[in-house]
Amino acid sequence: MTYCVGLMLNEGMVMLSDTRTNAGLDNISTYRKMFTFEEPGERVIVIMTAGSLSVTQTTIAQLREAIEDPEATPDTSIMLAPTLLKVAEIVGNQLASVRAEIDHKLSAAQGASASMIVAGQRKGGTMRMFLIYPEGNFIEATEDAPFLQIGEHKYGKPILDRVVKPTTSLSDAQKAVLLSMDSTLRSNLSVGMPLDLAVIERDTLRVTLRRRIEAGDPQFRAMSDAWSTALREGFAKITI
Amino acid sequence: MTYCVGLMLNEGMVMLSDTRTNAGLDNISTYRKMFTFEEPGERVIVIMTAGSLSVTQTTIAQLREAIEDPEATPDTSIMLAPTLLKVAEIVGNQLASVRAEIDHKLSAAQGASASMIVAGQRKGGTMRMFLIYPEGNFIEATEDAPFLQIGEHKYGKPILDRVVKPTTSLSDAQKAVLLSMDSTLRSNLSVGMPLDLAVIERDTLRVTLRRRIEAGDPQFRAMSDAWSTALREGFAKITI
Repeated sequence: MTYCVGLMLNEGMVMLSDTRTNAGLDNISTYRKMFTFEEPGERVIVIMTAGSLSVTQTTIAQLREAIEDPEATPDTSIMLAPTLLKVAEIVGNQLASVRAEIDHKLSAAQGASASMIVAGQRKGGTMRMFLIYPEGNFIEATEDAPFLQIGEHKYGKPILDRVVKPTTSLSDAQKAVLLSMDSTLRSNLSVGMPLDLAVIERDTLRVTLRRRIEAGDPQFRAMSDAWSTALREGFAKITI
Repeated sequence: MTYCVGLMLNEGMVMLSDTRTNAGLDNISTYRKMFTFEEPGERVIVIMTAGSLSVTQTTIAQLREAIEDPEATPDTSIMLAPTLLKVAEIVGNQLASVRAEIDHKLSAAQGASASMIVAGQRKGGTMRMFLIYPEGNFIEATEDAPFLQIGEHKYGKPILDRVVKPTTSLSDAQKAVLLSMDSTLRSNLSVGMPLDLAVIERDTLRVTLRRRIEAGDPQFRAMSDAWSTALREGFAKITI
């Protein structure tokens, strides 16, 4: 399982992913699920992945190959695509075709699936964030729905529903995604540390902040403990 | 969808269920999902249900018929069964057989399913709480796992994980299940008011408190608002 979340706010975009991959409970590994594509000052794209590792790794590898191909065109390379919408289309098509190919090798019963969050901005364009479904179609984050989640999304949604608005500051946004992840880590063993955090400030056209948070990170631990205390104190104060 | 939760604590048991039933988003009804069977001073049983209404209604109706049957035996009536374990077995068998019968009428693709929480105490016995699976097998709440949930359980689990222990008071327990329900109501449209709350104090052998909480209940609304405020204030205080 996986938990990835992306916020699209007035000040910028904040992305957080876990790294746990498992093929059964007795076969657990750490794999990066956040990938950045950057030409500072021109274009920045962050992709987060959830689902079958064979599908997501192959899709990302093919996206990279297409970028590096000397004959890359705006129709094949996400770094040349004229708009972020076109980027989402390229990623969606690639994901759907890899998935179809792998599905074909597997029996129908154990079909492989995957979904992705694609966030970015190109010079002259606005920030955009998309959730790409396994079939390649996608939806976009909006003012009314300023966050997108993939993977094990339910445990961490209540906190986002309550605190995230387009006007949320980037610092509060980092707190919100980390607490959302914290709730998920506590409730689902198949989501695990370390975490990858990335922030793209509006119009900087680069990844402004990139941080890997290891298991036992004292700052994350302190925040998690403080949140537990705040919840318990808040709970104690409420009367019914 | 449905959300039902039961806590088994040193002081007693607390049960909460919603009442929303839907066959598609355009066909929503209110049905009670909490059923009490009581012979005060002798035996008290509360059953909560989730899943296909045709399965749960039929199962409950058949359990009632078996109780009222003049030839009821300890093998067929949950009010005569010698132990709560036997009660769980009777409910499990009934549920599995109703489900199999209805499954047989439907195509395999749209098979009906349901699960239940059975909580109770008989004179001379201890309090026990079981989660009955669609196949009729069951698990029991323990000191280490003092709560059971059926239906849409993920949104409301983080708060329970954090505050519920066997030593939690019945008043705090009511607060915990109501806040757990509040998070679920906010995140899933197919879980809805009114709510049914029941408390069984240890060794009283009756339902000590029974309360229906209607939509717009001022007390529930105040608690929900206070919790939102507490979360936001707690969030604001945390530094990263």
